[in-house]
Amino acid sequence: MITECPVPRPESERVLLGHGAGGRLTAELLERTILPAFGGQDGPLEDASPLPGLGELVMTTDGFVVSPLFFPGGDIGSLAVHGTVNDLAMRGAAPIALSVALIVEEGLELGLLEAVLRSLGKAAQEAGVPVITGDTKVVGRGAADQVFITTTGIGRRLPGLTPSAAGAHPGDAVLLSGPIGLHGTAVLSTREGLGFEADIASDSRPLHRLVAALSPLGDRLRVLRDPTRGGLAAALNEIARDSAVAVDIDEGTVPVPEPVAAACDILGLDPLHVANEGCMVVFVAPDAADAALAALRSLPEGSGAVRIGKVLPADGHPGRVVMRTAVGARRVMDMPLGEQLPRIC
Amino acid sequence: MITECPVPRPESERVLLGHGAGGRLTAELLERTILPAFGGQDGPLEDASPLPGLGELVMTTDGFVVSPLFFPGGDIGSLAVHGTVNDLAMRGAAPIALSVALIVEEGLELGLLEAVLRSLGKAAQEAGVPVITGDTKVVGRGAADQVFITTTGIGRRLPGLTPSAAGAHPGDAVLLSGPIGLHGTAVLSTREGLGFEADIASDSRPLHRLVAALSPLGDRLRVLRDPTRGGLAAALNEIARDSAVAVDIDEGTVPVPEPVAAACDILGLDPLHVANEGCMVVFVAPDAADAALAALRSLPEGSGAVRIGKVLPADGHPGRVVMRTAVGARRVMDMPLGEQLPRIC
Repeated sequence: MITECPVPRPESERVLLGHGAGGRLTAELLERTILPAFGGQDGPLEDASPLPGLGELVMTTDGFVVSPLFFPGGDIGSLAVHGTVNDLAMRGAAPIALSVALIVEEGLELGLLEAVLRSLGKAAQEAGVPVITGDTKVVGRGAADQVFITTTGIGRRLPGLTPSAAGAHPGDAVLLSGPIGLHGTAVLSTREGLGFEADIASDSRPLHRLVAALSPLGDRLRVLRDPTRGGLAAALNEIARDSAVAVDIDEGTVPVPEPVAAACDILGLDPLHVANEGCMVVFVAPDAADAALAALRSLPEGSGAVRIGKVLPADGHPGRVVMRTAVGARRVMDMPLGEQLPRIC
Repeated sequence: MITECPVPRPESERVLLGHGAGGRLTAELLERTILPAFGGQDGPLEDASPLPGLGELVMTTDGFVVSPLFFPGGDIGSLAVHGTVNDLAMRGAAPIALSVALIVEEGLELGLLEAVLRSLGKAAQEAGVPVITGDTKVVGRGAADQVFITTTGIGRRLPGLTPSAAGAHPGDAVLLSGPIGLHGTAVLSTREGLGFEADIASDSRPLHRLVAALSPLGDRLRVLRDPTRGGLAAALNEIARDSAVAVDIDEGTVPVPEPVAAACDILGLDPLHVANEGCMVVFVAPDAADAALAALRSLPEGSGAVRIGKVLPADGHPGRVVMRTAVGARRVMDMPLGEQLPRIC
């Protein structure tokens, strides 16, 4: 009867942790497996997409599987709100409603679930967005790990804003709203008991107010992207590829907090590949760079905003991101391949 | 540093499988744990809720954790589409967009994932709704069971339709669009290898075309509810409770296919408690009953529609559902307590 169940494939063709890491393996999974399955549908899957016939409304969805559930600076509940609010914000949209679907492992302490949900509710309230619908499924012990949360958000685009990963132009300034590497190293340090937890807290926070502060820029605001899985390197590579430009980054300007650098050194991680949950890259027209920096710095969550580089013509290398080091050397900033930090969000 | 993590509670206060079963334990979890956490928000969590300020649009979300992934009559991919389309339909809405979030266990065969996604894509196309955005997370072996899918849907209400679980009036006719018990017994039989798979296939299917066929009834269409987790008994009890009425069901009219009755007998299940994924209960004004039955029967998915009972005044027992048996006896049809069939959807 079960005619649709396919013939098993060789061992090698299995899902790897890296398929969920936001790097090259994720892109392959999307292109080879996911998009063809939805081939008759409405174009590519994006982080946040316009509702058909209602272009001012955008929709985004994200599963949260972070381990441990609680970490310095946040927890899976607040993260589920911030991640979704930020996916909407990166399309220039203010959040208007969230849904929350829980998959809970049998035997989870109710008190832990309550704490996660209280944090989620508080984060939603602070972001000014209601949770309007939800679902709860329980699976047996060992069929899930504690609790997974899938949050879906609907947002309304701010008038005049149409940021897109394909919107970068040669000459544009590249800004970053705050330091990188805090979320990933905070979660990893807590999970592995590495002892950095006293010095590093996740940057998990909503970014929609920063985007609202940038809205007077109109179409001079070219690209917004929050460097989550895959880190700053993945975000810049995706923008360079989708805009068919080159991006030139000045290494010395990229803010990496000292404890993050120390943790990455010990763990063998590149801070450029580590997930963030509370900063964003902003590409703006050259004449808007100073106004954009001032707008970002006018809010606490943007107080560390800096200019980190600029967009160059592709010159035969569309999609290339190059880092200029302090001594003047140049190296290519590659797209991360696979999984550095499983279950970081 | 991890100050929000609560003090552990006694062993008894843990999440049970029954908390996800759609019965009394689910209602308790909602009332005691979930709703208070979102207390500052926008009212109760419902299966599908209006978007704030955009009342013609409704949103619903559902996690799908069914095991096995493939079963007679469907699979987790098609089920994820049908379940979400039907939640929208039960609010009188046509689906306009879906999002799909995957949580995948490391090591899952890519061929299996592809088959699930192809089925999901096909079901969406057949329902006429695009998948516009998505997300994929991968967790380590043993941290999830193969693949979980959370589908969120946005729908637009059909003009003039405002069905609600609180909308039943004394005198209303209670209709059922098709036979009950097929989905739950098909999944359970496949999972446990009970051998009923040759005779029973899930009724998983979209119901939005049936709802469209009922739309000429306008406000004489009082309630729509698909009896999924908790079965027909849970659906009728929820409606009776929310409408503060009594419901009187004629046992002999409730269509239970013979193989379903045989399977339930052997398994010790009550067909009234078994989940369905392709039928719905419809409450209509008395003078609309014949028109509603004719509209339902005009489509293949409603060809087995029947009248199964009527709404009575509460008479001091609001929320009571009573079943009249063939010999004229009357028994209360209780809300199922907890879990009969874990991971049925």
